[in-house]
Amino acid sequence: MKLHWSPRSPFVRKVMVVAHETGLADKIQITRSFVSATDLHAELMRDNPLNKIPTLVLDDGSILYDSVVICEYLDHVAGTQLFPKSFPERLVALRRHALGNGFLDFLLLWRGEQARPEGLRSAPHLDAFRRKAVATLDALERETDAIAATPYGIGHVAIGCALAYHDFRFGAGWRDGRPKLTQWHAAFSARPAVIATALRDEP
Amino acid sequence: MKLHWSPRSPFVRKVMVVAHETGLADKIQITRSFVSATDLHAELMRDNPLNKIPTLVLDDGSILYDSVVICEYLDHVAGTQLFPKSFPERLVALRRHALGNGFLDFLLLWRGEQARPEGLRSAPHLDAFRRKAVATLDALERETDAIAATPYGIGHVAIGCALAYHDFRFGAGWRDGRPKLTQWHAAFSARPAVIATALRDEP
Repeated sequence: MKLHWSPRSPFVRKVMVVAHETGLADKIQITRSFVSATDLHAELMRDNPLNKIPTLVLDDGSILYDSVVICEYLDHVAGTQLFPKSFPERLVALRRHALGNGFLDFLLLWRGEQARPEGLRSAPHLDAFRRKAVATLDALERETDAIAATPYGIGHVAIGCALAYHDFRFGAGWRDGRPKLTQWHAAFSARPAVIATALRDEP
Repeated sequence: MKLHWSPRSPFVRKVMVVAHETGLADKIQITRSFVSATDLHAELMRDNPLNKIPTLVLDDGSILYDSVVICEYLDHVAGTQLFPKSFPERLVALRRHALGNGFLDFLLLWRGEQARPEGLRSAPHLDAFRRKAVATLDALERETDAIAATPYGIGHVAIGCALAYHDFRFGAGWRDGRPKLTQWHAAFSARPAVIATALRDEP
C-alpha cells in the first residue's frame, strides 16, 4: 500500500505511529506529497480531492482517509486493539482521539495564521488559538491520571502526537505547571514507535 | 442527554439527522451554544476545551465529541447500522464520512475567510477553497452511482449535510453539470430526518 506522506505532518505521524505499533510499517510504501493551504497538489487530489495527507492507496486501488480511518484500518488488519471494540471503552478512546486531533487541527490553523503576511494576520484569531491551547492543555493535565490508567490506544497516540507537534512548532513551554502531562508524555516519547517516527523539518 | 447545539451548524445537523434516523431525537435535550473562531464560550469549554459543537453530555456526566463520535454512539445505543460493523463496508462508509466532513471543514474555513475584514482576507486562500470545492464536487459526482447503491449510512449523512450546507451558505450552483449528485441529493433531502433538521439562520 502507498501512503501520501510528509515528515512534517502530525496527522501522517499518527498513522506511522500506528503502523509501527501494529507491526505493519514495512508494508507501507511512502511517497512524499507536499501540501499546503494554498498550493494544491494535483496528483494527491486525484486520490483525495480534499488535498490532505495522510491518504492511503491500497493494493486493490481503493483509497482511505482521513488519518483516523487509516488508523482503524491498520488496527483491523493487524488484529490489534488500539480501537477498543466494546463500549464504553471505545467511546472514551474515540473522544480522546477527537481531543488530540482537534488540538492538532487548531495548532495547524494557528501556524497558518502566523505564516500569513503580517498585514493579513488576525489578532482576534491568534488570541483565540492561544486561549484554546491553554484550555486544552489544562483539560489534558486534569485527565492525565485517567489517560495513564487506560490500555494504550488511539486516544494516547493522538494526544501524544499533538503534544509532540506543539514541541515541534510551538516549543516545550506547555510543560510549565503541568507535571502529570509532562511525565506521561515522556513515557509516550520513549515508545519505539514514537522514536521511529519523529517529526522532521525537511523537504 | 444534553447537546450543545446550534441551528446553523452543519456538524450539529449531522448529529441531529442521526438522532432522528435512530429514533433517539426525543432523548436529546438541546442547549443553544454560540461558538465562533474568535468568541470563545466558557461554559461549552468546560465540557469541550476545543470550543466546538456538537458536544454531548450524557446523563452520567461523561462527555462525547466530535460529531462522528456522537453519531457512532447514537447508532450503537439504537442498535442501528449507520456505521457498518464489517469490513470493507465499514471502511467505505468511514472514508465517505471523511469526505463529507472534510468538505464541511473547508467550507466553514472558506466562510470564515470571507467574513474577515476586507483587508485581512487572503486571495490565495480564497482561490484554493474554490478549487477544492470544485474538485470535491466532481469527485462526488463520479462516485454518486456507488454511493446510491450502498445501504444508507454515516457516509450518506455527512455528504448530504455538506451539500445542504453549500446550499445554505454558498448557494445552489454546485448542481450545474452534476446531474447524478443533484438527483441523489434530492432523494436525501426528502428523508424525514433531513426535513426535520433543516439549517436555520437564526440566533
